[in-house]
Amino acid sequence: MNSTTNKRKIINDPVFGFINFPSETIFDLVEHPYLQRLRRIKQLGLSSLVFPGANHTRFEHTIGALHLMRQAIDVLREKKVSISTDEAEAVSIAILLHDIGHGPFSHALESTIVSGIGHEDLSLMLMEELNREFGGKLTMAIEIFKDEYPRHFLHQLISGQLDMDRLDYLRRDSFYSGVVEGMIGCDRIIKMLNVADDRLVVDKKAIYSVENFLIARRLMYWQVYLHKTVLAAEFMLINILKRAKELVSNGNELYAPPQLLWLLKHGFSKENLKINDNKSIMIKNFVALDDSDILSSIKVWSTHPDPVLSWLSTAIINRKLFKIKISDHQFSEKKAEVLKEQLNTKFNIPKKETSYFVFQGEITNSAYEPSSEEIFIIYNNGKRADFEKASDINLSVLSKTVKKHFFCYPKELTLK
Amino acid sequence: MNSTTNKRKIINDPVFGFINFPSETIFDLVEHPYLQRLRRIKQLGLSSLVFPGANHTRFEHTIGALHLMRQAIDVLREKKVSISTDEAEAVSIAILLHDIGHGPFSHALESTIVSGIGHEDLSLMLMEELNREFGGKLTMAIEIFKDEYPRHFLHQLISGQLDMDRLDYLRRDSFYSGVVEGMIGCDRIIKMLNVADDRLVVDKKAIYSVENFLIARRLMYWQVYLHKTVLAAEFMLINILKRAKELVSNGNELYAPPQLLWLLKHGFSKENLKINDNKSIMIKNFVALDDSDILSSIKVWSTHPDPVLSWLSTAIINRKLFKIKISDHQFSEKKAEVLKEQLNTKFNIPKKETSYFVFQGEITNSAYEPSSEEIFIIYNNGKRADFEKASDINLSVLSKTVKKHFFCYPKELTLK
Amino acid sequence: MNSTTNKRKIINDPVFGFINFPSETIFDLVEHPYLQRLRRIKQLGLSSLVFPGANHTRFEHTIGALHLMRQAIDVLREKKVSISTDEAEAVSIAILLHDIGHGPFSHALESTIVSGIGHEDLSLMLMEELNREFGGKLTMAIEIFKDEYPRHFLHQLISGQLDMDRLDYLRRDSFYSGVVEGMIGCDRIIKMLNVADDRLVVDKKAIYSVENFLIARRLMYWQVYLHKTVLAAEFMLINILKRAKELVSNGNELYAPPQLLWLLKHGFSKENLKINDNKSIMIKNFVALDDSDILSSIKVWSTHPDPVLSWLSTAIINRKLFKIKISDHQFSEKKAEVLKEQLNTKFNIPKKETSYFVFQGEITNSAYEPSSEEIFIIYNNGKRADFEKASDINLSVLSKTVKKHFFCYPKELTLK
Amino acid sequence: MNSTTNKRKIINDPVFGFINFPSETIFDLVEHPYLQRLRRIKQLGLSSLVFPGANHTRFEHTIGALHLMRQAIDVLREKKVSISTDEAEAVSIAILLHDIGHGPFSHALESTIVSGIGHEDLSLMLMEELNREFGGKLTMAIEIFKDEYPRHFLHQLISGQLDMDRLDYLRRDSFYSGVVEGMIGCDRIIKMLNVADDRLVVDKKAIYSVENFLIARRLMYWQVYLHKTVLAAEFMLINILKRAKELVSNGNELYAPPQLLWLLKHGFSKENLKINDNKSIMIKNFVALDDSDILSSIKVWSTHPDPVLSWLSTAIINRKLFKIKISDHQFSEKKAEVLKEQLNTKFNIPKKETSYFVFQGEITNSAYEPSSEEIFIIYNNGKRADFEKASDINLSVLSKTVKKHFFCYPKELTLK
Repeated sequence: MNSTTNKRKIINDPVFGFINFPSETIFDLVEHPYLQRLRRIKQLGLSSLVFPGANHTRFEHTIGALHLMRQAIDVLREKKVSISTDEAEAVSIAILLHDIGHGPFSHALESTIVSGIGHEDLSLMLMEELNREFGGKLTMAIEIFKDEYPRHFLHQLISGQLDMDRLDYLRRDSFYSGVVEGMIGCDRIIKMLNVADDRLVVDKKAIYSVENFLIARRLMYWQVYLHKTVLAAEFMLINILKRAKELVSNGNELYAPPQLLWLLKHGFSKENLKINDNKSIMIKNFVALDDSDILSSIKVWSTHPDPVLSWLSTAIINRKLFKIKISDHQFSEKKAEVLKEQLNTKFNIPKKETSYFVFQGEITNSAYEPSSEEIFIIYNNGKRADFEKASDINLSVLSKTVKKHFFCYPKELTLK
Repeated sequence: MNSTTNKRKIINDPVFGFINFPSETIFDLVEHPYLQRLRRIKQLGLSSLVFPGANHTRFEHTIGALHLMRQAIDVLREKKVSISTDEAEAVSIAILLHDIGHGPFSHALESTIVSGIGHEDLSLMLMEELNREFGGKLTMAIEIFKDEYPRHFLHQLISGQLDMDRLDYLRRDSFYSGVVEGMIGCDRIIKMLNVADDRLVVDKKAIYSVENFLIARRLMYWQVYLHKTVLAAEFMLINILKRAKELVSNGNELYAPPQLLWLLKHGFSKENLKINDNKSIMIKNFVALDDSDILSSIKVWSTHPDPVLSWLSTAIINRKLFKIKISDHQFSEKKAEVLKEQLNTKFNIPKKETSYFVFQGEITNSAYEPSSEEIFIIYNNGKRADFEKASDINLSVLSKTVKKHFFCYPKELTLK
Repeated sequence: MNSTTNKRKIINDPVFGFINFPSETIFDLVEHPYLQRLRRIKQLGLSSLVFPGANHTRFEHTIGALHLMRQAIDVLREKKVSISTDEAEAVSIAILLHDIGHGPFSHALESTIVSGIGHEDLSLMLMEELNREFGGKLTMAIEIFKDEYPRHFLHQLISGQLDMDRLDYLRRDSFYSGVVEGMIGCDRIIKMLNVADDRLVVDKKAIYSVENFLIARRLMYWQVYLHKTVLAAEFMLINILKRAKELVSNGNELYAPPQLLWLLKHGFSKENLKINDNKSIMIKNFVALDDSDILSSIKVWSTHPDPVLSWLSTAIINRKLFKIKISDHQFSEKKAEVLKEQLNTKFNIPKKETSYFVFQGEITNSAYEPSSEEIFIIYNNGKRADFEKASDINLSVLSKTVKKHFFCYPKELTLK
Repeated sequence: MNSTTNKRKIINDPVFGFINFPSETIFDLVEHPYLQRLRRIKQLGLSSLVFPGANHTRFEHTIGALHLMRQAIDVLREKKVSISTDEAEAVSIAILLHDIGHGPFSHALESTIVSGIGHEDLSLMLMEELNREFGGKLTMAIEIFKDEYPRHFLHQLISGQLDMDRLDYLRRDSFYSGVVEGMIGCDRIIKMLNVADDRLVVDKKAIYSVENFLIARRLMYWQVYLHKTVLAAEFMLINILKRAKELVSNGNELYAPPQLLWLLKHGFSKENLKINDNKSIMIKNFVALDDSDILSSIKVWSTHPDPVLSWLSTAIINRKLFKIKISDHQFSEKKAEVLKEQLNTKFNIPKKETSYFVFQGEITNSAYEPSSEEIFIIYNNGKRADFEKASDINLSVLSKTVKKHFFCYPKELTLK
């Protein structure tokens, strides 16, 4: 009789139950500060302002996706898809690290501080850092992540229409937001996975589960990810960060933790990255940043002398969110003018700064699905078919990017 | 301080938690033998042969639908839809009694013993019996059931695209079958119900929940209700009852409880109903019938001298189910001939009886949805729109009847 | 790419999710009529009269316990407890078959038809039958079942304070009855299992989970298994079977399926078993019996000319259950006399038969826990300790048999 | 047909489903910055370092407790306990506000910055502020909170052995930590509540649910609230704040948001409160504080020149938590000396500061249960009994304070 070693700790996950770590390297990666940072970054940013249970973090999501990957590997191996021990570890590492490039409130950050660099590029950058630290143990994982490893289906497990990332986040976001009907059948979909011609496919009888998955995802988009109140909050946050950046660049005094201040001053851009010294400083500051810095700063900014910064900050902190209207059509610039006029006359906001309060733009439901590869199904006779054709529902609309227009302004203003 | 009266008992439901009965009349109805009989009739017939947890009964479903009706009434009243106390009780009674006309293994029964009378007609017949017993207290409920009550939306609550029957059975069947992705958001859909122009409608923001509901229903059809192994079992049961009827009508001795024997002998048909004396005897025998009679008899029949009856009965009891193939096209009669030949030569089944073992036919997914009324949505401005048009998915296919062909034969035979 | 073989079917369990069968022999056993029969025997007998969701069967429970056994084996092996492939299969078979000796409504049967033979003896008898059929493949499983296999802890996994039987039934009964607070942490307890000195033990940190398990079991006893309305129904059923037996032995005509009739006539007793021919007939009739025979017969009996049989049968079928009073003390015989007098004068029940309607007796909460072995805990240093001593709650009362008295009579009678 | 007003928004709670707000005043209170602040304070502080799902906030808990209160009021009213509309609102407000005095990481704060003032005093102070703002509408709620309202049972609903606070937090903490066996039967306990002699009691048949509740609470204490790794983290956080305070008071430069800096400098003490001007400044700073300030500061402190502050801060942020040993007995001071010696020689920590790293102390499980009132049960005859006597388990130990000793030190040190 022996006890298990420390490296095989069990994690208690409210969504999937007990989760074990498959290897020591993976355990060591989980313990690394880059991964631990994800404990301080909420998966759904400001969504908890609408769904009070949605406080789950990218750390949890990462562990959940790792767990599903293990199941997927087991299922595929049972179906005689050969996956070596090294490949299994590599694809597990790839899913474990797929989100390490996320900053706090990613969308807001990527519209302000970080420019020209997606969170996937950032993840890759940090993976490469880690690979140096771990003496090359992550090389195959990185190849899989970049889709440069010869076996394409391994990449699809981490980034594809039915990847473990999506399966976990849809299930988890549904669980914590309380939107029960967004629940997908992870287990069943994974049991139905298979590989044909080096491509991830699903058995024919999974067709209804996949349809359900696609519809559930759509529901989660419109009901949760693109919930209009959440969007209003996110756009307000973007404007806060823009304003902070503007103030800093104009030489104004601004309270912020040093890493945030540095990023507000210098930004995190492709151009800057090319300068070698900058790169390591940029990364150092980026990985030091999490939700707490943004929230803590906004609270302090709510009493800043700048009326733009303080109004917006107070509004976010006290949840006095702006009104938001969504439409299939663009909003007239005239309406905006009326509101901006009110801001100027009633609230003394200088004309040129009114667009921090009254603004419009576009939203699309494609933010989360960059992948364009089709889902294939496989028949018992081994033949592959396009999912679209196998389903008798017209699902094309589900993969189509839907673009909508929004229009935002403070509740204190009146639109006649 | 007082304790609650006996008539307000609480029921513990694994799906919805504690359920109270809203009135004494309803409690008395629940206690009536007609309702208690539903405790002995499984909601999903032979489905438990595939989904071992699906042993829930029509009684549970009935109580669950009653519970949802209470919620719907509360929601509508909060939205200022006036529903009188009498109407609330009547619509609750209507949902409580909507299934009392179901016999055991309804589909099998309706293809054999009961002819020309649907379970809805039977429910109505029994409701009228009860109304006499309850001194006319059920009159309004019956009007609502028959859609003869002036306020149409009340009928829609018990029989329509989004009625409480469907909401309960989809949720409940998903729960007990373990097909988690069939879970629908009952709560949310009910919260979104409203009434416009005397028609049940849903608020615009329910659109994704309703899409999800439609897709989940579709999934439940193909994955559970029309699961091919379940279908094979049901068709075998139909043939068992047909054969038993044949044997009885040919004067053969057959073990069966008296009520089943009577029904095998005389049937339950529209013609017979017209003869007054028969009606009460037929009803008496019908309400004495439940799952246990069928199962108990089949076990005894498994050793009956008739080879057709004994083979089929043994196969059902020991779960040696026939093979079943499903296709979009009809199967060739030639294949059937080959198999029938084998039956005759290898298993000594007389030619004319081989069609009890080798048979084909059609299935449709419309069995459960006779209603053809559209779902309407209502916009904030009070305008009504057809759901189909409001949704940007082409959902027409979901309401379309899909017809498929099946082909069934014993595993002992070989199809080259 | 390959598909899995037919022998590795997956079962969808509402409690534990997808369940795989670990080996072909196990799959073949599951398909055997002895196991399939358990699909027609409810785990909790008449409890569904009080908990309408409690319709789950012994079949489901058996599959669930098999699933937990697989988990337990994995956990123990991870802790370096060596368990050979043969042992793993044997202990899995033992748990799979542990309940095959259960008849329908076991308690009622064991008080009437079956005498002097517990369901464990019956299980053993049937296992031996199966072992012959399976060519000796069950020998080790039977040794483990009988605790004759050298490694005692394997027996404890199927029959002990923390066996897989108990873990499954508590979790499952809590799930289906809707008594959520009876939920135990199966997963956690299994993760904490270990073996020391050939004895099943739990790691020290499981102490609170085990306390919780013991208290949850106690709650399930008093709230579900010994719920007084359920008890009333069970005692009524016992009296129905006693009366039926009496009528049959007095030569009265009685409808019943042949297997039930045979057992009512001849009984299933130790003495009879010794006569070799009888044994095989007895077993044949016993394994042909299930819930449906009892229920179907009772319905027919509800119109039997014997007033005792018909009253009791009607009362069970229509759920007009007797009143039951529970007390720590015996009830006075005098009260019973008053009620019996009423039965005689008001309802024309002959004096000598009044005790079918007015009766008292004892109940104990020990029915389900014949095992008397202690739970041991193991400290990090490898030392073993008695659980009782490790817990600072006085749990002795939990293992003590509690005896209570009940008193039953028809609601139509009045006790002043 | 009308839509509901804005003031009746619905909240989606993963634990209890949809929650409505009972009145406009309550809705306005929820919108107040004091309540909104609770969105930024985790219910379980640092527990998410061990239970990654435990990120739920005091805001969610507060809304959940409000929801249970509504149910309790309904149940009591059904049992003819008269509760006026004003009382119902007042007791709902009292539960809504019961936690507003909690700061971030309460235990750590109350050992360092806040001195001599419990969170209940703070809640009261803030309630009185709010009462002024709301024009006296909270007066009755405050009386109930302080137990000065004539009807004592109303106070017990917010603070007693079975109050809505406890029912919610046990259920919620169990849900989010994934410790499923800590699940209590809120619904059942609430259904069993009653009032006798102005005291909250439970019906007799609740006895097993209450036992289960007490055992589940105990399990949650030892498994979650006093989990040793969580304790280690909390003690490290206390030491961080102590050190920060020390550095500030010695005039060292320290990064921190202004509200935290103010509190580190001046503290929040009873003495200070007496000086009127201070009171409002103190409160202003206190309500501006939340989890984000502490976390954001600790990250910055991890690179502070002071080796004590930076080591501890780095350890918390990167989850390199100290070892912790728990024992029934005190640890020897000698062991501590050995470790401190190592700190000094190997890690250059000055002798006088080694006690920031190597420390011992006591923990008790009584932190969460200041109430000492007994639970009473009520028999059908209206008689009241002490719960202890009604239960046949010796539960006294459950209410007894258990004291244990802990001993903490960095993993880098070695204890021979």
